[in-house]
Amino acid sequence: MLGSTHGTLTTTSRPARVTACGRHPGPAVHGTTTTAEDTDVSGRPLSSDVPDLDRLFHPRTMAVIGASETEGKPNTTITRQLIDWAERVGARVHPVHPTRTTVFGLPCHASVRDLPERVDLAVLLVGDPAPVLEELREVRARFVVVFASGFAETGAEGATAQTRLTAALQGSGTRLLGPNTNLNAFERFRDDLDGPAIALITQSGHQGRPVFALQELGIRLSHWAPTGNEADLECADFLSYFATRPEVGAIAAYVEGLKDGRAFLLAADRAARHKVPVVMVKVGRTETGARTAATHTGKLTGADDVVDAAMRQYGVIRVNGLDELQDTAALLARARPPRAQGVAVYSISGGTGAHFADLASAAGLDLPVLSAAKQNELHQWIPGYLSVANPVDNGGHPVGDWRGRKIIDAVLADPSVGVLVCPITGPFPPLSDRLARDLVDAAEKTDKLICVVWGSPVGTEDAYRTTLLGSSRVAIFRTFANCVTAVRAYLDHHRFTDGYRSPFDDAPRTLSPSARKARALLRPGEQLSEHAAKQLLRAYGIRVPREQLVTSAAAAVRAAGQIGYPVVMKASGPRLGHKSELGLVRIGLTSASQVRDTYRELTEIARYEELPLDGVLVCQLVGQGVEMTVGITHDPLFGPTVTVGLGGVLVEVLDDTAVRVPPFGEDHARAMLGELRGRALLDGVRGAPPTDVDALVETVLRVQRMALELGDGLAGLDVNPLVVLERGQGAVALDALAVCR
Amino acid sequence: MLGSTHGTLTTTSRPARVTACGRHPGPAVHGTTTTAEDTDVSGRPLSSDVPDLDRLFHPRTMAVIGASETEGKPNTTITRQLIDWAERVGARVHPVHPTRTTVFGLPCHASVRDLPERVDLAVLLVGDPAPVLEELREVRARFVVVFASGFAETGAEGATAQTRLTAALQGSGTRLLGPNTNLNAFERFRDDLDGPAIALITQSGHQGRPVFALQELGIRLSHWAPTGNEADLECADFLSYFATRPEVGAIAAYVEGLKDGRAFLLAADRAARHKVPVVMVKVGRTETGARTAATHTGKLTGADDVVDAAMRQYGVIRVNGLDELQDTAALLARARPPRAQGVAVYSISGGTGAHFADLASAAGLDLPVLSAAKQNELHQWIPGYLSVANPVDNGGHPVGDWRGRKIIDAVLADPSVGVLVCPITGPFPPLSDRLARDLVDAAEKTDKLICVVWGSPVGTEDAYRTTLLGSSRVAIFRTFANCVTAVRAYLDHHRFTDGYRSPFDDAPRTLSPSARKARALLRPGEQLSEHAAKQLLRAYGIRVPREQLVTSAAAAVRAAGQIGYPVVMKASGPRLGHKSELGLVRIGLTSASQVRDTYRELTEIARYEELPLDGVLVCQLVGQGVEMTVGITHDPLFGPTVTVGLGGVLVEVLDDTAVRVPPFGEDHARAMLGELRGRALLDGVRGAPPTDVDALVETVLRVQRMALELGDGLAGLDVNPLVVLERGQGAVALDALAVCR
Repeated sequence: MLGSTHGTLTTTSRPARVTACGRHPGPAVHGTTTTAEDTDVSGRPLSSDVPDLDRLFHPRTMAVIGASETEGKPNTTITRQLIDWAERVGARVHPVHPTRTTVFGLPCHASVRDLPERVDLAVLLVGDPAPVLEELREVRARFVVVFASGFAETGAEGATAQTRLTAALQGSGTRLLGPNTNLNAFERFRDDLDGPAIALITQSGHQGRPVFALQELGIRLSHWAPTGNEADLECADFLSYFATRPEVGAIAAYVEGLKDGRAFLLAADRAARHKVPVVMVKVGRTETGARTAATHTGKLTGADDVVDAAMRQYGVIRVNGLDELQDTAALLARARPPRAQGVAVYSISGGTGAHFADLASAAGLDLPVLSAAKQNELHQWIPGYLSVANPVDNGGHPVGDWRGRKIIDAVLADPSVGVLVCPITGPFPPLSDRLARDLVDAAEKTDKLICVVWGSPVGTEDAYRTTLLGSSRVAIFRTFANCVTAVRAYLDHHRFTDGYRSPFDDAPRTLSPSARKARALLRPGEQLSEHAAKQLLRAYGIRVPREQLVTSAAAAVRAAGQIGYPVVMKASGPRLGHKSELGLVRIGLTSASQVRDTYRELTEIARYEELPLDGVLVCQLVGQGVEMTVGITHDPLFGPTVTVGLGGVLVEVLDDTAVRVPPFGEDHARAMLGELRGRALLDGVRGAPPTDVDALVETVLRVQRMALELGDGLAGLDVNPLVVLERGQGAVALDALAVCR
Repeated sequence: MLGSTHGTLTTTSRPARVTACGRHPGPAVHGTTTTAEDTDVSGRPLSSDVPDLDRLFHPRTMAVIGASETEGKPNTTITRQLIDWAERVGARVHPVHPTRTTVFGLPCHASVRDLPERVDLAVLLVGDPAPVLEELREVRARFVVVFASGFAETGAEGATAQTRLTAALQGSGTRLLGPNTNLNAFERFRDDLDGPAIALITQSGHQGRPVFALQELGIRLSHWAPTGNEADLECADFLSYFATRPEVGAIAAYVEGLKDGRAFLLAADRAARHKVPVVMVKVGRTETGARTAATHTGKLTGADDVVDAAMRQYGVIRVNGLDELQDTAALLARARPPRAQGVAVYSISGGTGAHFADLASAAGLDLPVLSAAKQNELHQWIPGYLSVANPVDNGGHPVGDWRGRKIIDAVLADPSVGVLVCPITGPFPPLSDRLARDLVDAAEKTDKLICVVWGSPVGTEDAYRTTLLGSSRVAIFRTFANCVTAVRAYLDHHRFTDGYRSPFDDAPRTLSPSARKARALLRPGEQLSEHAAKQLLRAYGIRVPREQLVTSAAAAVRAAGQIGYPVVMKASGPRLGHKSELGLVRIGLTSASQVRDTYRELTEIARYEELPLDGVLVCQLVGQGVEMTVGITHDPLFGPTVTVGLGGVLVEVLDDTAVRVPPFGEDHARAMLGELRGRALLDGVRGAPPTDVDALVETVLRVQRMALELGDGLAGLDVNPLVVLERGQGAVALDALAVCR
């Protein structure tokens, strides 16, 4: 079954159902294996081999296998289109077909083995590509594009067939795009546009159409990678490649699922290092979306909060709609770095200014109040009763004459202003035509960003289509919301990349002494007892209360004496989850007799509930503090992740947690706390003293180290509560649950 | 100073700086006074006089005061436009000017007193309207429009001038639109469009332009009310009026501030009773927005969460952007009531379907899985490997021929489907042109809603501009997000109005016996002691612990004996806020000696802190439960509002509260709890028993009664904590803070 003959139908392309994790140290099609030096302590790679895709996008030689010129056959249309494309990019085309001698006037070869030269690119239009791949491997074709569908997207049988494709090229230098991809890789790009371009990656061709169509609005596109089933080349490969192409100003991607979490992180890291913005729609916000994407592409969408965190860690800009994808990518591709963080709103209507300012502030943009001197300057041209503090309301009339340009230049000259936004909600040609021209002119002469919102729903107006869209220096939007989103992304991107330091540079490569101790405690497939889980923590230098595991009342009394009264006593066993609810935790025991009685009670409850115990823990009573939780969760896409949140019953009810994918630095551990709604609890409320936030951050980092070193052996770790004491007093893990894989 | 001469410049119109509250029982310009029968127990009106605005929008006679025909004068352009407008609506025009005899060929009158007949509408183009208003009052003009600006929007002096305008018409039958309004009320509407129309209300003319421009996309508009400074006629008047106009399908409004909260509620109530959707942009999400709106319009934006709650209580659909305002109002104006709640997504791309489904589900839309029989039916025309469960992915090809229409009809015929959404992200004429035609045809023959998203950013394509926009039955969007927002609003609106019962019907009109007791406890300007505040609660049947206020250690011991050990002791005084932090609350005292010691300690602390006490409270120790808070807050726009939230320290840190503006019914009291993030705490978590939610709801309703009866005498009431006990055990107010106005 062949892929469709036109770009629109790339809609039906269905990428592979692949396992989304565990691929990390494994071999890829191209046969490079990561060496020990390239991996962190978890065995995951610290750098990616960036494929050289030049010859895929700009082949010098090209074979079309299954070429046809028979009228009415789909392959004929495709062949014609490929020949046209090859001509444009300057590639020699070699049609291949067992029985033809020429195709569209070009000499045709009976088989791949008969090709007259090594080909950079072979496009397979045959229904069963596997045998041909063997031949292409022999002739050392650089890239193969497989249009055929009917692979992983159709279920288990198709997945097996797809594995055969991958196997056919295993260890060779031949890279595969597809199967189940389409002609989007062979689109004609406008070559009359200049400036930085958008490179596009899509896992559904139809969804890339609107970004491609931006060219009709004057936005340059340089590449389109329709990744299909991603049997070999995947989204991350294209991200990595585009990140260093000089013509690429921004990468726009429509993604349903990620094939390999680590590969994605490394690609995003590469883009961040090179300050190339990546804007992405990622399906999977909801169960329905995830399920639908799975039926569509066979890809795991991943736990959405983890995907979200991973993107933020590397500055990938996540947007929800294709319109936001277009607008944000177009702005980021073309705008120069900001000179200041301030946004000035300039409009011919106080209402428009107020409305835009409201939305911009809600999105966290900074609208600095202009200085008195600047306001005086503006009032030369703007009536005194209008507010020019920012938003600057000119009342309309001044834009109809020479004053309009003066005002724009004066606002742009303000050192607090990095971005000027001019929302024009209603066109009124005597004013808005001149305003549009002035903005376009001003944009040519400033290195600050000018954004215009053309609010008319009609969009056929001259000022919009000719004047504004004719400029490559003005960023144009149709809605306030998209302008706000894009400006926010623009400022965030530059702030992020300016301060970016790759966490992979600091990722641990060798096991810590803690790891050796801790690994001995793991029991594959089992839940550890509280005592064992705490030993795990202790191995990593995380403070736990002084405690002893005892198996008799007498030993309990001895332990309490050594630890010091008052003590806490808890039943300890491998299957104990919520101990408090069963009455298996007793706090504040102050005497030997209480300890003795409690020992008996706890063991009796456990017997009654049929819970096997390995003993009773006698623990130091720790002081008051804020109860938090820190833990490790295994994500199917990214492996072990680290979470921190409000502890106790609150973590269950409010789910106030933040998550990060290792590796990450102290800055992220601190930022996680900032994401908690209950953050203020740590600073002390209602007279409570501020807590030892530094100790909490340190604990998060130690848990991260555990995640890196033991993570693949842990299904989950849940320290809850971790009591964060008064500043300077540290943080203590009162309880912990660890489940081994 | 005159208003501007063209609609775009309505941008500079600046409505009045008016006090936003307290107007409730006061007299309006038109002199009707609300009688006791029309008011609730708080003295606020229970129904609004709906002004008959027919003669404003369709005058039969009209005066233009300050008419001009001198070339180059702004008034000349306006006069010309008003005469044209009058001709279209069929009104006789009488120009008024002291020195002219004719204006544009019409006989001109020297003064208002010389008008030959009573006028429905007088438009004032003079700089100082006050003296003319006196005359218009004498000749009983029905409506006056004042263009002049320079009133409340310019500050205190202008506000005084504006008061003079209002005073000039006080008690007369003459109603005023403006000042500082503009020609938007005299726009030319397309009369070739039919079906239900949008009526538009704006507090900034420029901001109404995009909605007005919808006519160019085939959406009918019937009215535009530019309310200007709202010295008399305000947004609420137009809402009320439009709610019963037969041609109005939906009301769209751009609002910066509300003049009178109660008037707004009553108008929204009227719209809800008549099932007329109101879609509104309301500025004031942020401090910046509120501040900017205030400089612009002089209106109070109101506490945004309260405005938001008030809107939701009456089903007003709040949107953020003008684009959403357009799209949502257009859909709601024209779509028939839904036959089912289910949304079917139909696309020529699995990716598009997955993406749309993700966004739709995130917005709470229901995408029912189609039955096996329906899926079989669809698979007659759609290849078996494509998923048609919903989203229905047709793979593209079937829409190019006769199958396309079959599929659409089959999906529409499904009883679970109320809305069919077809997102077309990329136009491909051989397919999308036919698809667009099929959708338009199908829409003619179904009473279900069909929505199309035209995702191309270009928007000049034939299928979009001619086929789709040519249909009045298909709802057309340019972004997924706006389609989702509008469909959600459409289903919500019908669900809401179908089940709507006006709270004003049940609002209490007479004081309860509680009120008489409680009023005696209020101390204007003072904060009540905890004990007094609890008596207030007790008067309203809200349970408080058994407690006694004592002034000696001996009395404390006696009280404890009567109440029963263990007891709680608290310092009681007028200025005590956070007592716990000062150590002024002691819990669980079990003996007379403890009580005696505690009495001394509390009074000593108070003496040290210089806090005057009226005694010490000895209180019953109440059992364990969930700590909530219930309270009354005085809103500048709406008066007393009722809040409920998580209690204790959490209310401060997490601000997990819900708010309602009285009057509201039990359904809302229950819904408030559903809005809390910590809602699950009430149902019992971690083995805790479910709490007495009914008692909590009852408490909220009793507090509402207090708000209605005492609210204007209370600056605030804060019951915190209100302990909600186990189901069947009730809820007890452990502490309360009441501040009188």
